[in-house]
Amino acid sequence: MYGITTPHLYSLAVHGGAGTIRREDLSPDPERAYRTALENAVSAGYTILDQGGSALDAVEAAVAAMEDSELFNAGRGSVFTHDERIEMDAAIMCGHSLDAGSVAAVEQVRNPIRLARRVLDRSPHVMLGGAGALQFARDQGLPLEPLDYFATAFRRRQLDEARAADRVQLDHQARKPDKYGTVGAVAKDATGHLAAATSTGGITNKRYGRIGDSPITGAGNYANDATCAVSCTGFGEYFMRAVAAYDLSCLMEYKDLSLGEAARHLVFDKLPALGGEGGLIAADARGRLVLPFNSEGMYRGWQYAGETPQIAIFK
Amino acid sequence: MYGITTPHLYSLAVHGGAGTIRREDLSPDPERAYRTALENAVSAGYTILDQGGSALDAVEAAVAAMEDSELFNAGRGSVFTHDERIEMDAAIMCGHSLDAGSVAAVEQVRNPIRLARRVLDRSPHVMLGGAGALQFARDQGLPLEPLDYFATAFRRRQLDEARAADRVQLDHQARKPDKYGTVGAVAKDATGHLAAATSTGGITNKRYGRIGDSPITGAGNYANDATCAVSCTGFGEYFMRAVAAYDLSCLMEYKDLSLGEAARHLVFDKLPALGGEGGLIAADARGRLVLPFNSEGMYRGWQYAGETPQIAIFK
Repeated sequence: MYGITTPHLYSLAVHGGAGTIRREDLSPDPERAYRTALENAVSAGYTILDQGGSALDAVEAAVAAMEDSELFNAGRGSVFTHDERIEMDAAIMCGHSLDAGSVAAVEQVRNPIRLARRVLDRSPHVMLGGAGALQFARDQGLPLEPLDYFATAFRRRQLDEARAADRVQLDHQARKPDKYGTVGAVAKDATGHLAAATSTGGITNKRYGRIGDSPITGAGNYANDATCAVSCTGFGEYFMRAVAAYDLSCLMEYKDLSLGEAARHLVFDKLPALGGEGGLIAADARGRLVLPFNSEGMYRGWQYAGETPQIAIFK
Repeated sequence: MYGITTPHLYSLAVHGGAGTIRREDLSPDPERAYRTALENAVSAGYTILDQGGSALDAVEAAVAAMEDSELFNAGRGSVFTHDERIEMDAAIMCGHSLDAGSVAAVEQVRNPIRLARRVLDRSPHVMLGGAGALQFARDQGLPLEPLDYFATAFRRRQLDEARAADRVQLDHQARKPDKYGTVGAVAKDATGHLAAATSTGGITNKRYGRIGDSPITGAGNYANDATCAVSCTGFGEYFMRAVAAYDLSCLMEYKDLSLGEAARHLVFDKLPALGGEGGLIAADARGRLVLPFNSEGMYRGWQYAGETPQIAIFK
């Protein structure tokens, strides 16, 4: 993806998580299902951009599409906590206004990314957590769902296995590589604005109300028209300590690196030096997209204005 | 504080919040009480540095001293939420290892900063929230206290006033200027390592589980031996959108600004451009300290190795 220098009228990229995703472990049927789900997410966002809509609306729609799919660890299909609950995180940011909204450890909300958007649009705050975030969703009239809506048999098996192993199982290191991590989207719209959105169910068997990088503005999600929009996926604690999403922006703004140079430095030098595995998707003000990852695979898709959508999973 | 260029063997600064603190509003008795409390916090941290202890231990001790004082909005003396609860946030970071620990919306824990330190030392995670963070405190055997320990008559009056005004009252904009905001500490120790710690009770009458900048690594708190240790205080949402603490570090690392230049640019140019009021304290690798704020006052204290402690409140 590096080296593209012509500006794009609009563009969008999505990811469905990074991790140990190997071609030999993914049989044709699941691979087809993932490709279809990623195509749907790209299409949901691209359609909005193509009709002159905003980057903010596009990334929200793309992430909501992945939340609605059971295949990804976000919204429906989220992993279980140690207490057999489903606690979800999401964040969204507008690169034009630098307004941000996020929610942490929220239950029952069908689309956590739409709740994060309401925080951005209709709350004086940036971040809401737990029961309070759920109350805000109720007050805003957002659709809620029972636990059974989110829960899948596969996630129950993951929890049982993690409990048997008596450890916190990072979803990204699950032995069965057909289900992974966070989802996210970045976009540049026809008016030149950028936006980023990220959503996750966190890590299987998580305890103690662990909050990861996804709902942290600057860690897992960030957007600024002056630099880039970025959504991260991987071992969240490393992205938090690296303040990874904002670091990408600072490498561009303060060191004058291009998006590709900054992303390569972050994903292949800085994060591995801390021990961090994962990847990111990012867009710059010219609509260029990068999708680097240092893991074996990352579910991803992207589309430039007037071009055909692209889907990829492996290196 | 700017322009000091000789290296200091060790040094420490603390703040007790920034806001509309005017000399004419603060009568001699409360002013004396604040000065004494700030002296105690400086002394708690400085003593550790003077005995060869680590910056990490020093900032934890300094912040714990302010949490133990009823005068500051952190630990004992924290403000009430809309539901008449006391939910506290804290964060700590080691500039040597880049390890970080934080807690959000935790109740009952006498010293939230000590819980954040346990997250740093003994948890695979960076951030814990709500009931889960309390459970972790229990499992770690940290002292818990009943609501009455934290609650003060003044904070109850603030809640009543905020409810009467039917709005979220930013503690920093309270009409009675004898109680303010967040607390924090930064230090450089004799081995050259930096650390930062921040703790707060949040904002009076807060709803919906609002999480501010204080427990967000990179927003309200950050430390990195290569650049600086920083603790912020002010209107948290602006510091979150600006990723303020990490921005200070990036301005130094990527733009080669000095600590003083970077802090001035952040506090007097960038944050006001977003609408953000507040200040910060920061230390660099040579032990230089800066304590800039764009509000009317900031409770603050500092001490360089072998020098006398300094306390200030107004501009």
